[in-house]
Amino acid sequence: MALIVQKYGGTSMGSPERIRNVAKRISRWKAQGHQIVVVVSAMSGETNRLVALAHEVSPQPDLREMDAMLATGEQVSIALLAMALRDIGLKAKSYTGGQVKVLTDSAFSKARILEIEDSNIRHDLDNDTVVIVAGFQGVDADGNITTLGRGGSDTSGVALAAALQAEECQIYTDVDGVYTTDPRIVPAARKLDQITFEEMLEMASLGSKVLQIRSVEFAGKYKVKLRVLSSLEEEGQETAGTLITFEENTTMEQPIISGIAFSRDEAKLTVSGVPDRPGIAYQILGPIAEANIDVDIIIQNVGHDGTTDFSFTVNRSEYARAKKMLENQIKPHIGALTIDGDNKICKVSAVGVGMRSHPGVASKMFRTLAEEGINIQMISTSEIKISVVVDEKYLELAVRALHRAFDLDQAAA
Amino acid sequence: MALIVQKYGGTSMGSPERIRNVAKRISRWKAQGHQIVVVVSAMSGETNRLVALAHEVSPQPDLREMDAMLATGEQVSIALLAMALRDIGLKAKSYTGGQVKVLTDSAFSKARILEIEDSNIRHDLDNDTVVIVAGFQGVDADGNITTLGRGGSDTSGVALAAALQAEECQIYTDVDGVYTTDPRIVPAARKLDQITFEEMLEMASLGSKVLQIRSVEFAGKYKVKLRVLSSLEEEGQETAGTLITFEENTTMEQPIISGIAFSRDEAKLTVSGVPDRPGIAYQILGPIAEANIDVDIIIQNVGHDGTTDFSFTVNRSEYARAKKMLENQIKPHIGALTIDGDNKICKVSAVGVGMRSHPGVASKMFRTLAEEGINIQMISTSEIKISVVVDEKYLELAVRALHRAFDLDQAAA
Repeated sequence: MALIVQKYGGTSMGSPERIRNVAKRISRWKAQGHQIVVVVSAMSGETNRLVALAHEVSPQPDLREMDAMLATGEQVSIALLAMALRDIGLKAKSYTGGQVKVLTDSAFSKARILEIEDSNIRHDLDNDTVVIVAGFQGVDADGNITTLGRGGSDTSGVALAAALQAEECQIYTDVDGVYTTDPRIVPAARKLDQITFEEMLEMASLGSKVLQIRSVEFAGKYKVKLRVLSSLEEEGQETAGTLITFEENTTMEQPIISGIAFSRDEAKLTVSGVPDRPGIAYQILGPIAEANIDVDIIIQNVGHDGTTDFSFTVNRSEYARAKKMLENQIKPHIGALTIDGDNKICKVSAVGVGMRSHPGVASKMFRTLAEEGINIQMISTSEIKISVVVDEKYLELAVRALHRAFDLDQAAA
Repeated sequence: MALIVQKYGGTSMGSPERIRNVAKRISRWKAQGHQIVVVVSAMSGETNRLVALAHEVSPQPDLREMDAMLATGEQVSIALLAMALRDIGLKAKSYTGGQVKVLTDSAFSKARILEIEDSNIRHDLDNDTVVIVAGFQGVDADGNITTLGRGGSDTSGVALAAALQAEECQIYTDVDGVYTTDPRIVPAARKLDQITFEEMLEMASLGSKVLQIRSVEFAGKYKVKLRVLSSLEEEGQETAGTLITFEENTTMEQPIISGIAFSRDEAKLTVSGVPDRPGIAYQILGPIAEANIDVDIIIQNVGHDGTTDFSFTVNRSEYARAKKMLENQIKPHIGALTIDGDNKICKVSAVGVGMRSHPGVASKMFRTLAEEGINIQMISTSEIKISVVVDEKYLELAVRALHRAFDLDQAAA
C-alpha cells in the first residue's frame, strides 16, 4: 500500500464523461489498496472563459480579485470529481487550497507555496477517503486567495506529494509519456521509460511541454518521484508512462543522449563593434532584463581590434521590442557600430546525462548537421546539453538527423 | 454618514455592463459619505448552469460537494464587482463567506447563519474601502463551504446588516418596490412607500416574490430596516422604493388593507367521514409532514354523527404524492370514508395591520366576492390577513375586485 498523488489536467477533466472516467481510474488504483490524493485543474476552457469575463468588466483587472475569480475554476472541478467518486461507491472529499490549507506568499497571479498543512488530508486518508485538492491555488497568511500561475496545478501536485511524502506523483495528461523528441516531427520517436530530472528540466525548458518546468524543479528539490501518464488510455490498456527520477539509473547502460529537444519561437540579436571593456555585457543586457524580456543563449566572442560582437536570443514575440531598445536606448550609450537581428531561427538541442562521461557528443552533433548542409549560427553547451541555433527552415531536418544519429529511432517492427 | 448594506441579485449582476452599472450606483452612495457593504448573488443563469453540470456528472450530487461548487457563482461576482469599482477609482475588496467569515451550521444546501465575524469588514470600512461579500454562502465550524438555499443572498444581506448594525439594508431587484398587488393582474396597483414586516411576511409567503421570506423574518427578528429598490433605474431617476419597517406607522392614517396577495399553485385535499376523536389531525398530518410536504391551510369542521371532514391545502406539485399517501397509508389506519381532492384552486388574501382595529374587513371581503359570483371553498384568518380558497379560474377576477373594494387602486391620472 502506498500513498499516491495523482494530478489530472483540464483536458482530463474536460467534460462530465471524462470526469466519470477519471473517477473510474482512481477507483482502480484505490482497489489496489493505495491511499489516493488527487489534484485537479479547471475544466478545459474554463480559465480562459473567466479571464475573458474579467477583461469585459475591467481593462486591467486587479490581481487579488482576478485570483479570487480564477480559483473558482478548480473549485468546480474538485466538487464534480468528488460527486463522481461517491457515485461509484468511494468515500471522497474535496478541498480548496484554502481549506487544505496551501499557504503561499501574497504574490497574486504567481504565488509561491510556502507550506502545506497536512492534518485534514491525513485524517481523511486514514479514514479510507479519496482526498481531492484544487490545484493552482492557495491562500496567503491574511486569508487572501492566491493562484500559482498558469500550469500551477502540476506544482500543487508535486508540493502535496512532497508534504505528504508520497510514494510518487503521477501527472496525467493527454500524452502517454516523455518522448525522445516530438513524434509529430519524428514518427520513430520512442517513449522513454525513465528520464532524470536534469534531463527533464532541459527537455521541458526547450519546449517539450509535457510538464510545467517549475513543477519539475520543485520535484527535484524535494526528491519527489514524478510519473507522466496518459489519462486517455482505456482500462486494461494503461501503460506505465515515463518515470522522472532524481537518481541516474545505475543498473542499466545509460544512453548517451536521451532526447532531441527543440524550440521554434526564437529570435537572435547581434550587437557588432562593441568596445571590448568590462561591464559591457551588463550595459547591454541590464535594460533588457529590466524590461522583463527573457534572454536565453548569450554569446560573446573574444575581441580583436578593441571591439567584440555580442549576440543573444530572445523569444520571437519579444524580438521587435528588444531590437528597438538596442537601437534607441543602448546603442547611443555604448557606441556600438551595428545592430543586427534574425527572427527566423530555431534552437535544437541534444540532451542526456550520458554525455558527462562520453566525450565526442558535440563533434558527432556538428558532423551530423554538416552532412545535412545545415549551417550552425550559435552554439551553447551545458553539462548535459548541447544546443545549436540554426535557420528555422532546417528545424525538422536537424531534429530527424540528430534523432537518427544518436540511435534514438525505434527499431523497425 | 451611515453604514448601508446593499444587496444586488443575479439580474443586476447579469452582464459586464450591468456590473459596471452597479459599480456606478455604489459610487454615488459612496460620494454621499456613506460606508458601503455590498452583498451580491451569482450572475443570472450561473447557478442553474452549475446545477445542470453537477447533474450531468452525478444523478444525486452529494450536498457538501454541491455547496462547494455552487459557492463559486457568487465568488466570481464579488471579484468582478471589486474590479469594476477599482476601475472607477474606489477602494474595494471582495470576501467569500469563508473569508468574512459567515459561520453557519452544517446543513448543506440550507444552512443557517450562526454568527458573522465583522473585524475584517470594520477594518476595511474604516479604511474607506467598499466591502463586497458573496451572498448565499458561509462556512461551518469545520471549514466546510455551505450555502443558504435559493434566494439566500437576501438573508446574507440582512444578516450582515444586523451584525454591523447598519442603518438599513437595501435590496436591489428588478422591481422598484412592493406593490398593493401584482401589477400584471391589476394595472392600477400602487407602489407602497412603506409596509410593516408582518404585512410583508404575509405578502411574501402568499406569493409576492419580491423578497425571500426567510430574509424578512430575519430582518424582523434583528430589527433591520429593509428597503426594496430597483437596480434598473437610471442615474437621477432613482426612487426610494419601499421601506419595510418594524414599527407601524403612527404618524399618518394607516390604510386598513395594504395589499391583495395571491398564490396560484395550490391544491386541496379533503378527508371525509373521519371519526371525530382526539389525535385524528396528527394521524392524518403526521405522515404528510414526515414526507416533507408543506401543508398550508388546515380546516376541520365541528363533527356531527360522530364523524368530521378534514381539509388542507398543499403546493400543487405535491398534490399527487399527498393524495397517494392519504389513500394508501392513512385511510386504512383511521377508517375514513372518502378522500377527495382538487388541484385547480388558488388562494387570495387581503393583508393589512389596519384590520386589527377595523372590524368588518372579512364581511366586506366575502360580500365583494359574492357580488362577483365567486364561490368560497375555504376560509382561513390570522390577525392581519384573511385568506380564501377559490376555483383558480376566478383568481384574476377576485384580485381585481378586492383591490378595488379596499380602495387600493391608483387615483386616475
